[in-house]
Amino acid sequence: MITIGIDIGGSSIKAALTDAGRRIVARTRRPTMAEFERDQTIAQIDECIGELLSHGEAREVEGIGVGVPGAIDLDRGVVDYPPNRPAWGEVPLAAMLVERWKLPVRIDNDANCAALGEAHFGAGRQREHFVGLTLGTGVGAGIIMDGRIYHGQRGFAGEFGHITIHTEGPLCNCGNHGCVEAYVGIHYMMRLAVPLLLADKDSLLHQRARENPEGLVPKDLSEAASLGDDTARSILHSTGERLGVAIASAANLLDITTFIIGGGIAAAGDPLFKGITESAAARVLKVHRDSLTILPAELGNDAGMLGAASLML
Amino acid sequence: MITIGIDIGGSSIKAALTDAGRRIVARTRRPTMAEFERDQTIAQIDECIGELLSHGEAREVEGIGVGVPGAIDLDRGVVDYPPNRPAWGEVPLAAMLVERWKLPVRIDNDANCAALGEAHFGAGRQREHFVGLTLGTGVGAGIIMDGRIYHGQRGFAGEFGHITIHTEGPLCNCGNHGCVEAYVGIHYMMRLAVPLLLADKDSLLHQRARENPEGLVPKDLSEAASLGDDTARSILHSTGERLGVAIASAANLLDITTFIIGGGIAAAGDPLFKGITESAAARVLKVHRDSLTILPAELGNDAGMLGAASLML
Repeated sequence: MITIGIDIGGSSIKAALTDAGRRIVARTRRPTMAEFERDQTIAQIDECIGELLSHGEAREVEGIGVGVPGAIDLDRGVVDYPPNRPAWGEVPLAAMLVERWKLPVRIDNDANCAALGEAHFGAGRQREHFVGLTLGTGVGAGIIMDGRIYHGQRGFAGEFGHITIHTEGPLCNCGNHGCVEAYVGIHYMMRLAVPLLLADKDSLLHQRARENPEGLVPKDLSEAASLGDDTARSILHSTGERLGVAIASAANLLDITTFIIGGGIAAAGDPLFKGITESAAARVLKVHRDSLTILPAELGNDAGMLGAASLML
Repeated sequence: MITIGIDIGGSSIKAALTDAGRRIVARTRRPTMAEFERDQTIAQIDECIGELLSHGEAREVEGIGVGVPGAIDLDRGVVDYPPNRPAWGEVPLAAMLVERWKLPVRIDNDANCAALGEAHFGAGRQREHFVGLTLGTGVGAGIIMDGRIYHGQRGFAGEFGHITIHTEGPLCNCGNHGCVEAYVGIHYMMRLAVPLLLADKDSLLHQRARENPEGLVPKDLSEAASLGDDTARSILHSTGERLGVAIASAANLLDITTFIIGGGIAAAGDPLFKGITESAAARVLKVHRDSLTILPAELGNDAGMLGAASLML
């Protein structure tokens, strides 16, 4: 079954012609920009599809799957006020693509697509129940139950980043205090990191934290940590610990004990995963302790695109 | 359809002969005691069933449903190490009752049964998705999805009390810090209340808090609150607020926005519900704010028994 999978991200549209999401036959990408109008972005998506459909194997394409950030009206295939483009209002994306390309189209939330990608082809293979986390600016999740995405009552399930871990914690973008995202979302995490780097004159990142704190990214922390920088290590470790608190809460509530961690920060590696695992294992109910499994995602940046390509399965 | 529903609680076994859980044809109860041996408790259950089966309408009984605290192996009908009777080990309760009474038997967790009771006959009628909370010594929950109990991977879902709301909060029985249960479980709540009552000389409960703090129960707080006691009101209100934090986390994760509150403390009334509703509404994601619905349970102490009676439906 040949399908097209499209992942609409904050800075680019990634698309692939796939064999049911399993094998990538051809791939392409286009930039997306915050200042793009709605129709410019739709045009970019159409360009991706047009390019992939010109491929030799594309004569058999059976459908198009699209992963989009934010809230999706699944039944109608409508994107409701995309979080970074609220002015677009309701975008009837599925209907627009069906009309243009005369192919079946399914859309879903990007974190759900990433989890589905891992479920079919990545770290979630042969696991019927897991939570796939995507760490980035936000902390999204796709909840996989019985091998399928759990959407909730209206399609908004999986807002893992907005699990409160500390009633009086820092203010989150959403207006609540102490959401796990307000600790481990990239910008929040770096904001918490800078004072610690400033306080440690021996840190490899001390100078950069003084001169250009805005320029520091999680990758800097993981590089410094791998060179033996204790403060960088400790920042990553406590970021992991905070994520572990929310993981324990979710495991207790859902009776799901496998968590697959992907997205940008996930590449930070050892100290982060150690923090997650130690904290989640210490906090989760005893009955779950032995089955608790924290795995790195396997599909990297392709997870969302491959998951979208498999929405038709 | 005539069924028997049995609710095995901390201090009593309640049982009823019902018309599919809807109408109570006859009811009975027996004491349970912490010091009872396993076989004494089984004998009490058998006495309840025997008594109900002697009723005129009992000739048509089509099955027995039982709600039990703790973790249940649903497929095998086995109660695993009941929380207050861990020494009992694995109790093959369903098989024992089937052998004795030659009737189909289903068992489930007590909080799940209470939620199911509310789903069929109480505040959850015509609601396909809700979380039924039972506030007592612990904070249990039954998660209803598409009108059915969500059991999770191994039947342990709904441990709502062990959602962390404060990473450095008080120690919970489970070993974690800052579980919502460690604030709103009856004993924890009263332990937090006493110093506040001691600090307020004008409180109606001040004297009792000095002389016999162990004797105070949530009902005392709600009675004092209804007589205008500000400290009692404020304790109930902040207990509600803490529960609201965990409700917001669960709503964001599950995309379920109806919460039905039952159990002992729920009778505390206004200040508690006001605290819950204000805090949950302020903290939940905007997309859920309009649909967030906090309701008192309607079936009181019968919820678990009626839910158990409807396990056969």
